Parts: sequence; structure tokens; C-alpha cells
Amino acid sequence: MPKRQKNNAEVSPKGSLETLSQREVQQLREAGSGSLYPLFRKCALAILNTGAQSDNAKTILEAYADFEVRIHQQDRGIRLSLHNAPADAFVDGQMIASTREMLFSALRDIVYTQSERDNRQVDLQSSAGITDYVFHLLRNARAMRAGVEPKLVVCWGGHSISTQEYKYSKKVGHELGLRGLDICTGCGPGVMKGPMKGATISHAKQRNRDARYLGLTEPGIITAEAPNPIVNELVILPDIEKRLEAFVRLGHGIIVFPGGVGTAEELLYLLGILCHPDNSELPFPLILTAPKTARQWLVQIHQFIGETLGEAAQKRYQIIEDNPAEVARQMAAGLIKVKNFRRERSDAFHFNWLLKIDEGFQRPFAATHENMAALHLQSDLPLHELAANLRRVFSGIVAGNVKENGIRLIEQHGPYQIRGEQRIMQPLDALLRQFIEAGRMKLPGALPYQPCWQPVD
Amino acid sequence: MPKRQKNNAEVSPKGSLETLSQREVQQLREAGSGSLYPLFRKCALAILNTGAQSDNAKTILEAYADFEVRIHQQDRGIRLSLHNAPADAFVDGQMIASTREMLFSALRDIVYTQSERDNRQVDLQSSAGITDYVFHLLRNARAMRAGVEPKLVVCWGGHSISTQEYKYSKKVGHELGLRGLDICTGCGPGVMKGPMKGATISHAKQRNRDARYLGLTEPGIITAEAPNPIVNELVILPDIEKRLEAFVRLGHGIIVFPGGVGTAEELLYLLGILCHPDNSELPFPLILTAPKTARQWLVQIHQFIGETLGEAAQKRYQIIEDNPAEVARQMAAGLIKVKNFRRERSDAFHFNWLLKIDEGFQRPFAATHENMAALHLQSDLPLHELAANLRRVFSGIVAGNVKENGIRLIEQHGPYQIRGEQRIMQPLDALLRQFIEAGRMKLPGALPYQPCWQPVD
Amino acid sequence: MPKRQKNNAEVSPKGSLETLSQREVQQLREAGSGSLYPLFRKCALAILNTGAQSDNAKTILEAYADFEVRIHQQDRGIRLSLHNAPADAFVDGQMIASTREMLFSALRDIVYTQSERDNRQVDLQSSAGITDYVFHLLRNARAMRAGVEPKLVVCWGGHSISTQEYKYSKKVGHELGLRGLDICTGCGPGVMKGPMKGATISHAKQRNRDARYLGLTEPGIITAEAPNPIVNELVILPDIEKRLEAFVRLGHGIIVFPGGVGTAEELLYLLGILCHPDNSELPFPLILTAPKTARQWLVQIHQFIGETLGEAAQKRYQIIEDNPAEVARQMAAGLIKVKNFRRERSDAFHFNWLLKIDEGFQRPFAATHENMAALHLQSDLPLHELAANLRRVFSGIVAGNVKENGIRLIEQHGPYQIRGEQRIMQPLDALLRQFIEAGRMKLPGALPYQPCWQPVD
Amino acid sequence: MPKRQKNNAEVSPKGSLETLSQREVQQLREAGSGSLYPLFRKCALAILNTGAQSDNAKTILEAYADFEVRIHQQDRGIRLSLHNAPADAFVDGQMIASTREMLFSALRDIVYTQSERDNRQVDLQSSAGITDYVFHLLRNARAMRAGVEPKLVVCWGGHSISTQEYKYSKKVGHELGLRGLDICTGCGPGVMKGPMKGATISHAKQRNRDARYLGLTEPGIITAEAPNPIVNELVILPDIEKRLEAFVRLGHGIIVFPGGVGTAEELLYLLGILCHPDNSELPFPLILTAPKTARQWLVQIHQFIGETLGEAAQKRYQIIEDNPAEVARQMAAGLIKVKNFRRERSDAFHFNWLLKIDEGFQRPFAATHENMAALHLQSDLPLHELAANLRRVFSGIVAGNVKENGIRLIEQHGPYQIRGEQRIMQPLDALLRQFIEAGRMKLPGALPYQPCWQPVD
Repeated sequence: MPKRQKNNAEVSPKGSLETLSQREVQQLREAGSGSLYPLFRKCALAILNTGAQSDNAKTILEAYADFEVRIHQQDRGIRLSLHNAPADAFVDGQMIASTREMLFSALRDIVYTQSERDNRQVDLQSSAGITDYVFHLLRNARAMRAGVEPKLVVCWGGHSISTQEYKYSKKVGHELGLRGLDICTGCGPGVMKGPMKGATISHAKQRNRDARYLGLTEPGIITAEAPNPIVNELVILPDIEKRLEAFVRLGHGIIVFPGGVGTAEELLYLLGILCHPDNSELPFPLILTAPKTARQWLVQIHQFIGETLGEAAQKRYQIIEDNPAEVARQMAAGLIKVKNFRRERSDAFHFNWLLKIDEGFQRPFAATHENMAALHLQSDLPLHELAANLRRVFSGIVAGNVKENGIRLIEQHGPYQIRGEQRIMQPLDALLRQFIEAGRMKLPGALPYQPCWQPVD
Repeated sequence: MPKRQKNNAEVSPKGSLETLSQREVQQLREAGSGSLYPLFRKCALAILNTGAQSDNAKTILEAYADFEVRIHQQDRGIRLSLHNAPADAFVDGQMIASTREMLFSALRDIVYTQSERDNRQVDLQSSAGITDYVFHLLRNARAMRAGVEPKLVVCWGGHSISTQEYKYSKKVGHELGLRGLDICTGCGPGVMKGPMKGATISHAKQRNRDARYLGLTEPGIITAEAPNPIVNELVILPDIEKRLEAFVRLGHGIIVFPGGVGTAEELLYLLGILCHPDNSELPFPLILTAPKTARQWLVQIHQFIGETLGEAAQKRYQIIEDNPAEVARQMAAGLIKVKNFRRERSDAFHFNWLLKIDEGFQRPFAATHENMAALHLQSDLPLHELAANLRRVFSGIVAGNVKENGIRLIEQHGPYQIRGEQRIMQPLDALLRQFIEAGRMKLPGALPYQPCWQPVD
Repeated sequence: MPKRQKNNAEVSPKGSLETLSQREVQQLREAGSGSLYPLFRKCALAILNTGAQSDNAKTILEAYADFEVRIHQQDRGIRLSLHNAPADAFVDGQMIASTREMLFSALRDIVYTQSERDNRQVDLQSSAGITDYVFHLLRNARAMRAGVEPKLVVCWGGHSISTQEYKYSKKVGHELGLRGLDICTGCGPGVMKGPMKGATISHAKQRNRDARYLGLTEPGIITAEAPNPIVNELVILPDIEKRLEAFVRLGHGIIVFPGGVGTAEELLYLLGILCHPDNSELPFPLILTAPKTARQWLVQIHQFIGETLGEAAQKRYQIIEDNPAEVARQMAAGLIKVKNFRRERSDAFHFNWLLKIDEGFQRPFAATHENMAALHLQSDLPLHELAANLRRVFSGIVAGNVKENGIRLIEQHGPYQIRGEQRIMQPLDALLRQFIEAGRMKLPGALPYQPCWQPVD
Repeated sequence: MPKRQKNNAEVSPKGSLETLSQREVQQLREAGSGSLYPLFRKCALAILNTGAQSDNAKTILEAYADFEVRIHQQDRGIRLSLHNAPADAFVDGQMIASTREMLFSALRDIVYTQSERDNRQVDLQSSAGITDYVFHLLRNARAMRAGVEPKLVVCWGGHSISTQEYKYSKKVGHELGLRGLDICTGCGPGVMKGPMKGATISHAKQRNRDARYLGLTEPGIITAEAPNPIVNELVILPDIEKRLEAFVRLGHGIIVFPGGVGTAEELLYLLGILCHPDNSELPFPLILTAPKTARQWLVQIHQFIGETLGEAAQKRYQIIEDNPAEVARQMAAGLIKVKNFRRERSDAFHFNWLLKIDEGFQRPFAATHENMAALHLQSDLPLHELAANLRRVFSGIVAGNVKENGIRLIEQHGPYQIRGEQRIMQPLDALLRQFIEAGRMKLPGALPYQPCWQPVD
């Protein structure tokens, strides 16, 4: 690994809206128990590491072991002192404005997440309570725009993709922007960046100065997938399940591009929800698309859904091959249905209250070896339970691939053991193998990819 | 009392930034225990009653006994259905924009105040905890502007004042606005309106499009002192003590105009704080001013301070008679000292953390007959304790004059009994008598003013 | 006359959009022939003299005989050096922002007016050419907003009015602002200021940040009627006829308040135009209004119109007594008709191309004794010619009262001689006498008003 | 040539600031003599043809021979009816906002250019008069921002470049944008688009919402080099010499990328001016840069300058190879010198008045065979005259390559005959040959490039 350039810097919150109380500053500062400092330090490092070429959280954290960020109260608000920060976040010694903004967004979210968790009104044991919690986090981050008609399109897809796939995602983003649509992604590289970059150009052409590039992330993934600097709104949700709920309640439609296990997790999550009987009439534009060169991926994922969840699930999405303008047109058409539906049912444009999310999809899943081994993967399960468990399988593999904790667990205990009925395990295994072959598991590194799971009979 | 005109209307939150969760809508809606509906209804009525000529909260509430406000979730956010609302809030059937905004500000504050109170991190038993609470309420209301140099001037003074005094307050506001200063008041009529109106004109002359007209109120006083429609930011603090703390931590300087017991309460509160040894070096521009016609008031209040708190307290303010431009010049000069002090001490421009407020000034005081009778008014008390108790005396009389609860208590039990040492009681009694004579106690009504207190030996 | 306070100052064009070429700077600077300096100096002095209590142009110019303004090119654009400028334009040594803006507006208009006059495409000999010229001057001043629906209300009325009339004009302005309407006046004191002041307050209440306060003036009148500082767009037209045309082509409706000869001139001008057969179907909301105390004025002017121009002319306006809200409601209703008419006929919202203005109303009238004596005032003239001549009579008297040239002419040659048929002369004489009695001729000065005209048989 | 898709559309000026008088609408409409319609039609077609792959003006004009644009006055301003317009300007039937804006910019410039030419104050026979004319055109187009510190960087270079060169120009633009610099180009494809696209992304990263992408063009070139849609300000100057003057008076520094004869014309123009003794102390940052793959171009152009104009000319620029960040850093450093120089000399930031441009560079050059043959290319000419003539040679070849008139002339009379001293002709011929070899003459077409000139002894 090459020696990395590091900078020291003082950052004041020019243009930031965030202020902190003394208590909050204290919480972020103290090294003692209950301190939020380690969490903030980790997120700050990820944000500063934008543009980095690695997706191994552990490696990154070790490379910047001497990174420090100190918080000071001063006349114009909070000031941050950074020591040994990644040099790429600076231009001629000045921190890039979007990076500076994101640092203060991280402060805001970390402090508020903790505060809400301590609120007696917040009931994280009930489905409604979790949804309410997600709403409050998003509201505090000003991520909801009351009264704006549906136009926020979520783009899901891999961070490790080919040049053709990246360019294709830019083209789709460009077509979305030409039609005035905003972009929301997981805010890292690859598909999380391409559509934003494409839309930046077309929003400029359409003189749309208020375009949104919303990035939703969580502390476990942010290090591996550093927010790209096009993101002009960053929200750090507390865990992967809250982040997924934020995607589907904020987003008015979703486009899935080629990706690996992370993308499969997201797709399974959404399909599991849309297959719930309560959502049968609810319009939710969902498009799977890829360039010609990734045609194979479209075929594989469609087949996998068919073999595991069946035709009903396949009916909830459209497949469009190699046609960016058509993707954008179909999405725009779908959004009109969303608008009309919400208007009729008096649901908010800014938050999809009517979408029924089963508690199984909301409860955090810790990817321990024990939990992974205990997952039921049987075809006689109710559809949404099976989808939920498949989602957890992919979630676990993401952790084992790129998250700090997951990597450590795999280092200690070897690959996860996954077991299940052959009718499920066979297509699952096939899909994962195809991901490996297509290089969709991780960014290309020095060593060949080592699977972090193994099927067990 | 003349029959009042009433309107029904649907109000959508055009231009409002506020969104509510389903839980919050529920809290505002339910008639059951723990519901915030009565509180919201009362504040909404006060806001709609803008421009009214009465300051008797009980009368107003009775006149609109059939007023109702219902909250609905819909596509563009929350919608309010109003029934039997005061007609003055509308122009040709359209609600005035500022009124609409204030309704949603009330929603925001009522919901958040309750939520924060339920937070385990909020410690309302300690001085630091109360200050922290006030900070969070103000932050949630977006009342703090990080990085903006000190320019928020609080104007205190009576709601029942003469035409000359009103015009004088407009002139002072005009001069403040010419110098780019923002205005903060208790947001009712009289002195709470005059400076804002004057500054509106001069900010227009100076092409200052972002001028702030901040109104701080609390549920007990809002009905008697309806927010005037110039207010472009309204914050409803939970009680009088939080509101007073908000004034002195947000405001960078304070101007006191002629007024009655409410004004005296405010002045005593601030002087008590400024006399605390920890604040001896802290700059806090404080100016008492009045037109020629109210010269007497200046003399009386200055004398009262001298006789009760002494020369040290008198040194914390300047007296300027009948000279609006000089008031503004002195305030502007004082603000520069504030700026330099905060910069040196790294205190925030947007919140006066360094100001020491003794717990005695922070604890809510309920104006029951028992509490009023138990107040110690002895000259051998430490200065800040005596000031705190005098503040409570005035606070109680305000309640007995215009607050719903206070008026009911006086109706039931007769005037408050106040006792104390003659060296204190004598000037207090003199001041109160002068207020009555000058008509500063209440807005002129049908009957002569009936004192709601009596001194007892 | 008291000694006036004077300031020296350097003014840079902060916030101004205007830039000048070297040729233009040269034109404004040179003392030689063809120089625009005297004109600019005079307008600049008028602008700086805002808030002055005199309407005698000659006196003002003499009081500031040593006033100078020099123009310099520098890095950030044009800089002005002022010597011996009226001190009222400054607050603590800083020029008021609106005054600064207006100085640069004057520069812009004076330079462009001259330039256009030298354009071979501009034909000031034809009616269409003059209209085209007015359009270009207004466009260069950015006074037209393409696409904005009709909402610009012109308020005409006297600069010398009673306190009650001033307050009434403020109330009407307040009601116009509540309904989102913009204000255009002749930009001096009295009725030219009141409606703007009232609307400033109500636009603030309605959170209307883009309200327009458009002032139209001309070099002959600007000194006597200094632009009030609420004006946020100032346009200096080259002469009184261009200014009148600008009023009726830009304004979507007109309200006439009590006034003297200037107001009568304006009303006669408009009625003459509206009586033209080509305009018979064109909607043009025109309201005459006054408070109770000025009821007499309403009666007199209505009677004068009836006796000279007849019932047809009377039908083109509404009279509303002492009812600000009703004035605003009727105006708003009239503007809807204007909007529909322009839409149907494809006429621009921003310029009333379809309004037929006869050349007689466009040609400049020089108020010499010779011209005044030669005016035909016979009842057998076509209606619009009679109206045009009556307009000229009033125009001449305005000049004799307050304009520099007019005052000099009267000093030299005595009062203007006016002759005409008794059926016209009698009501004219009666009206003028009533103006004198009501003090509507000039601002109250040391001496009793001396008429600048006399009827001759 | 493939059949082109065509659209009909009605375009209203949403968001446009432009309004037209009836006279101007007439001028643009009439088919008679003096009509501006053919000129407007041609520019409109070029603007609508954005993104087209051809640079042959004649071919484009013939392909859209049935294109028509009609102008109508309506309520919201001017409306355009387009018939048989290029379909690429539309997204799902809606015209792209930037294209719509540019159509109205073209209207504005064409009308004003004509009007100014008819102004008696405009003296196109003198150098000062021409400069003044350029200033007025730019001011009318609102292309000057008084008071903004120097940050407008002109990027010159070819429209027919390699993919690597295009990507390189994007990277340089990205680095310029990271440092807050604005971009000005000739507004076509290739180098005229790349830097704007790169800067769009980095301005987004830096949250710079007011970035400028200024395109300067002229009717002769606009068809061949259609404005790219990133351009957010378009100015159409009347001819190539005015456009060149606009570049060097508006731009605060210039970067030259690889290109062909057009780029050589621009560079010769600027070097000729900078070599004038009056400009010897005037700072003007000028950087020649190229990626590694175009190293040869850097060598060739540097050598050509050396052999023809000598070392003095070479000293006026820096050469930076394959280092986008360094280009941006050097430019930023140069701009500080420009700022300081203008401040010291009181020259405007927004217009380089102090730059001496000899009349030889200002006079329009018509590329007829006669004029081309008459050019003196002798080494004993004063340096700036030789440079002026070399500029004309390149200008003529540009015309013969891509301009409608030039192509027609070459079709009729064969290649231009160019003669001169061997010491000049030899390097000239060598450079031109290298341009042909590198494919820099024209966009790749069906046929091999046919030179439109020949050297003659």
C-alpha cells in the first residue's frame, strides 16, 4: 500500500446550518463511556477519504490510525481541527465545500440519532415506532420537502462495476436529469456516483439549480463506500435496516443497475415488501436496467427472482436493456401514478407512510456466524419471510466483504455457513458464483476474491 | 362586547418548512389524556386573533369558545381545518401569509417541546440542563444563525402604551433598521410591534431583505398578547422563565421602553442576572429610553432600581431620553463590544453561553396566592435573590392581570397578599401605583383598573 | 432658511447592476457642450435631497450651489465622489442603500436617453416612434417584467396633502399590498410615498419579498419632488409627456387620490386617452378615492369632469369614498379583466401596446407664456383635443408652481394668461380656486400662495 | 447523410429576461430589405442543432432548408413558432431550457447589434469606437459583472480533437472549477465544451451555484460550431474581430488547448496584441497546454511562434504539459496579478480597457480570394503587423473550411493563393500540414480533407 498524503486543517462551518449545544460538543469530545467520538471519527474519516480506491474498511481505518478530529466551540459556531486527514479532500490546502458540508451533516446525524434513541416517546420495539424513528431522523436532516411533487429517484447498483456499466449509469442519470428528476443513492462510488454525475450535467442544461443529490448511508458501510462529492445532502442512518427503510419511504421510484450482493440485498428487501398483500395496489416504479455488456446480469437476477420468489415478484419490476431514455421515460410515467395515488389517499409526497413494511424487514440483523447459520431458507415459508431471510444472507455477505466488523469475524472464524433447501440454495449459489466471476464482489485488489461464505447441506 | 366575525378555512402549509410524523399528528388530535390539542388550539386562536383590541385572555377564549382546528395529513404535508376562526386573519377569504406561517411554527414548537421533555438526556433539574433545553428548543425553531455577527436587538416594553410612546418605539426601530439591526420582541402589540414596524420601513430603505423580526412568547401570555403580523419568526417557549432565558441568550443587546409590570419583570430579571459576580465583565448593552412625554416613567423606574437594588444595578444600563438615533448609535457601539468579547472568549455569536444565570431565575414560578404570599422581600438578602423575588412579584401581577389562570385565581380568592420589609415594600408600592395612574397595567377597558394584589404588613 | 448640513462621500456601486463605457463616463464628466453633467448633477442632488421639506426647485438648487459629483472609473466599476451633499442621505456617514441605488439608476437613464435620441432608428416625430422610444427607455431600466400577471397599480395624487389624506393613502397601500399588488407613483412625498409605505408593511405580512415600488419621474419635477427612499426602482424619463405615457403603458390600473394641479393634469391626460374611440373596449381600472375629510375634493373633481368632458368621461372611473379595502378589492377585480383582455388580444402584460394615445398627448408642451396664451379651450373641440388642452393648462401651472424654469418665467413675466370659452373657463377657475383654498397648490411656506396664472376674457 | 428528425414547437420565454418592441418584432419578421429574419433564422437553427456531428455550415443549412421560426407578441412576451426544427433540442417534446434561453439571447443580440450600428454616437471607423461598440454589445447581453474579482478563464482550442484531448480539457476544466474559476469559450464542441463540462462537476462539488459558462460566437461560425448546452450565457457578436476583442477584454486569462487553424488564429491574435509595446507591463496569464498524447502539437506551435514572431512572443506564454492541476494553479496565480494591476491602475475588473488593441486587429477581414492573395507575409514588417496578417491567413482558412460563405467561394474559385517570404511561408506551410495530418482541420467526414489554400511563390 502506498504511503498516503495527509493534511492538518481547521474547518469552520461556512455555509453550514448546524449548531451544537455544549452537551453535544461534550458527547462528541469525551473519550469516556457513552462518548460518540469514535463513531464521529470513523464517519469523518470516510467522508474525507472521498475518491479513494479501496473498499476495505479495515485497511482504510488502519492507514489513518493517527487521524484525529477535535471539536471546538467558537464565535461563528463549531470549528473542527483535523490532524492527519486524507489529502484528497483538499484543493490547494482548502477543503472542498461539499466535504466540509458533509462533515457537519455527520455531526448532526450522529448527535441526533443518539438523542432520539434516549427519548421515551421513541419505541424501537414496534414497527410503527421504528418508522417514526426513521421519519424523525430524516426530518432532522431536512431530507423531506413538504409539497414537492414526487421526483426523487433512487439508484441502486454496485460500487465495483465495469467502465461500460459506469458510463451507462451516467447516461441514465443524464436522462433523469433532463426530465427534472432528483437522484438518491447509497452515496459511494460506482452506480452510487454515475447517475449523480450524469444528472449534474443535465440539470445544468435544464437550468435546474435546486437539484438534489441525496446520499443515504450508515456507519457500517460509509468507510468502505465513501460519499462521492456530488452528494449535496448526506444522511447517516444508524444501521442498514433504517437506511433501507429511508430509501423506500423517501424515494418515489427505484432503478436497479448491475451490482453484487449489496444490490441483491436491496432488491430482495424491496421485493419482499412489495409482495406484502397490503402493498398490492400501491404503485412503486421499479426498473432493472443494464447496458448491453451487462445483459447477462439482467438475465441472471431475473432468473434468480423467478426461481426463489416466483412470478408475482417478477411482476413488480420492469426490465429495460440498454436504453437510458426509455428508463427515464418509464420512470417519469411511474411517478405520475405515484403522485395521483398519494393525492387520492392523502399520503404525503415526502414520506411513503402507506407502504407496509413488515417488522421482519425492520429489525436489525447482526451478521454473526451464529445468526447466518440459523437462517431458514425454505420454499414453504411465506413469500415475505423467505425474501427477508434471503435479504439477510446478502446482508451478511456484504458485511463479510467490506465492513470492518464482518471482515474481522471472517478473519477469526472463517466463512459463514449457510444452509437451506436445495430449491433455494441452488439458485443462490449460482447467483453468487456469477457475481464472483463478473468481479462484482469487491473492487479489484491484489489478491483473487476469497468467498466469505460457504453453503452447507 | 360586539359580536365577532368568524371564518371557516382550510390552510395548507405553503412555504412552511414543517412536517409532522403520524405520532405527532396523533398527539395533536386526540382528545384523551396527554393530548396536546388544547394547548395547540389555544395558541392557534391567539395567532389568528392578531390585531385584536383586548388583552384579557379569558374573554378572548370565551368569545371563541366554538373555535376548532383539525389536523389532516395530505399529499403536500399537513393541512389545517379551521372552524369559527377570527375573521381578521383573512384578506378576501385568504389567510395572511404570516399568520399561516405562525400556525405551523406553533405546531412545531408544541410538538418538539413535549418531545424534548420526554428525553432522558434532558435534565430540567439542573441549571445547565435547563439552558441546554432552551438551546434545543431554539435550534429546532431555527432561531439561531451560526456565523452571523451580533445584531439582534431585543425591545422590551408595554403592550398598553400611549400613542406618543408607540410612535417613539417605531422611530427607534426605524433607526435600528437603518443600521442593519434585527428586532426581537415579545411579539404582541404596543412596544412589541412598534420597533418592528419602524424597522420594516428602514430595512426596505436599506434593501435588507433578510431582516429578522423574531417574536418570543409562551402559552400563558400568547392569548393576551397576540403575535403581530410583522413577526417573521415565532417561537413559543414552554413557560415564562424559558422565554426570559431565550431573550437574554439570543439577544445581543436590549432596549427597555415604557411599560408596566411585565416590563418591570423583564428588567428585574436581567438586572438580577447582570449583578451576578460571574457576569461582571461580560458586556451586555442595556438602554432605557422613552419619549419626552414619558420622561416620568424613566425617572420612576430608575429610582425604584436605585432604592431596591442600588447603584451597582443602575450602572448596568444607560438612560437615553427622546433620542431615537442616539439609542441606535449606542446600541450599535455596544454590539461591537459584544462581538469582540465573544470572539476573544470563543463564545458563540448565536447563543450567549457565557452569561451566568442563577437557578433561581430559571425555575418556573407559579403565581398562586400561597407562593405570592411566601415571597421574601428583605433588604438583607443577597442582591440576586432579592432581584429574583421582585421579578416574581411582577410576574405574579402580570398573571393576575392578563393570564387566563391568574384571572381565574383572582376571581376565586381575591387579590394576592404581598408582604415584605418596608424599605422594599414602599418603593414597590409607589411604582405600582404610578403604573396604575399612567394606565400601564392593562389596555383601557370599560371598567377602572382593579389591582390584583395588596401589600400586607 | 436654516443652514443645511452637508457631507462629502465616496460612493461605490455595491449591488448596482450598472456599468458605463469610457465614452459615457466622458459625457457625464465634461463641462463642454453636449455634456450631460448639469443634468446628472441636478438629478443626483434631488435624489440625495430625499425627505426634504421644500418643493421649490429653485430654492433647493440654490441652497446646494456648491454641490458637486465626480465620476471615476475603478476596478469594481464606477465610483462617485460627492462634495457638499445633503446630509440626510447618510446614516452615520454611510449612504442609505436605496439612495445609492437611485444615483446609479439616474446615471443609467440619463446616459441611455441621450444615446437613444441619437439613434437613427428612433423617430420622435411619429406617435409610434415616441411609444417605441418610451418602451426602450423602460426596457433599458429593466422596468418591464415579461410574463408577470397584471399587478402594477399606479397611485396618483398630491405631494401637498393633509395628514388625514396621507394616512388614508397609506391605508389604501396597505390593502393593495395585502392583495399582492405592486405600487407605482411619481416617487415624491405625499401620495407618492404613502401607498408605498403602507404596502411595505403589508407585503412584509404577506412575505412578499419581491414587491415593486416603482417611481417614475423626469428631470423637471425630480428636484421639487425628491424620490422617497421606499422606491426600489427609479426611472427618470426625459420629459413629462414620456413619463405620463410610461405611467399608462406600464400601470395596469390607476388610483387617483386628492391632489392639486399635477394630479388634475394626470387625470385629464388619462381621461383624454380613454375617451378616444379606439380605446372604448379596452379595460383600464380607474378609481378616484379620498377619506371622509376630503370628500369635497371628490365632489369638485367629479363635477369639473362632468362640466368640461361630460358623462362619457365620468363613466371611465369609479368613485369610492373612505373605504381602503373596497378600493383594493375593486382594483383587484379590474386587474382580472385587464389580464383576460390582454390574453385574448395577445397584448403584452408588461406594456400596454393596444392603448391608443393620440399624438396630441405625446408631443412635449413647453409652458411658455406664449404657448399658454395660445391654448384653445372651446367646448366645440373634439373631446380628446379639449382634454389635451386642459391637460396642458394644468401642466403649465405645475411648472409655474414648482419647476425651476417655470418659476423663473413667472418671476420675469408675471402670471400666465389663459383664455377660453366661458363654459370651460368657469369650472376651471372654480376648481383652481378650490385647490388654493384647500392648500393643494404647494407645500405650506412662509408666504400665502400667489397664483401663477390669470384667466383673461 | 441520414434523414434528420424534425419537430414543430411553440416556445415561450419562460425564465427569459428579454422583451422586444413592436419595431423589433417587425424587423425580425419582415422578409423585405433590411430584415433581420435570415440572420435570426440561421442563428436559431445553429442553436437548435446543438450536439450535431457536422461542422459543415452549408450542409446543415441545406439539411434544414424548410426550417422556419416565426415571432409572435403575446401576453407573457414574445413567443416563437418553430417549424421543422432539429429534434435533438427537445426532451419528450419539451425544449431543453438552455436551448430556449439561447434562442432569446440570439434575438436580443441580433436586434441590439443592428440598433447600435444605427446610432450616431457609434464610430466604427476608430479603434476607440469599435471597442466602445463591443462594450455596449456585451453590456446589453449582461455579460459584465461589475465588482466581481477576476475569475473568467477563456479556453481556446479545436472543435475537432481526439478523445484524449477532450478528456484532458475536461480535467483542466474540473481543476479550474475546484478553484472557483468561471469558463468562457467559443461555445461549440470539443475544447469549447470539455472545460465547461469538467467545471460543471467541480462547481457542484464546491457548491458554487453561480458559476458562469460564457459562450462567445458570431453568425459566421455559429452554424458550424453549435453552442453546447452547458453554456449558460450566450453572446453573438457581429463578426469574428468583435468576438476576438470580446474574448480578450472580458477574459482575465486564457488557456490554449490543441486545435487547428481556428485556434492558431486566436493565439496569433492575442500574441500580436500582447507584443504591442503599450501592453508590455500588462499582466495577461496565457497558458498553452496539452495531454501527453498531444505533446507534438505543443512542440509545433511553440516552434512556429518562435520562427515567425520570435522569442519575445514566446515569453508571453507558459507551456504546461499534461498537468491539469498545475494549469489551474498557475492560472489562479496569474489572476491575482491581474487583480492587483487593475486595482492599481483603476481599470475595471469587468472589461480590460487598458489592453491596447491596434486597429489592424479590429478591422473586419473578408476572406475573399483577392484579400487573401494580397496579404503581406514578410519578416521585415513590424511584429504586430506580421502577426495581424498571419492571423488573417488562419482566419481565411477557417472560413474556407467551415463557414458557409467561405465554402461557396472555394467551390467557385478553388483554393486561396497565399504568398510571402520563404522565412514565413515555410513554417506556416509546415504547421498547416501537421494540422492536416493530425486531423485538426475539420471533423472527420466521408472524404479526405481537401486543403482550401495553396502557397504560391
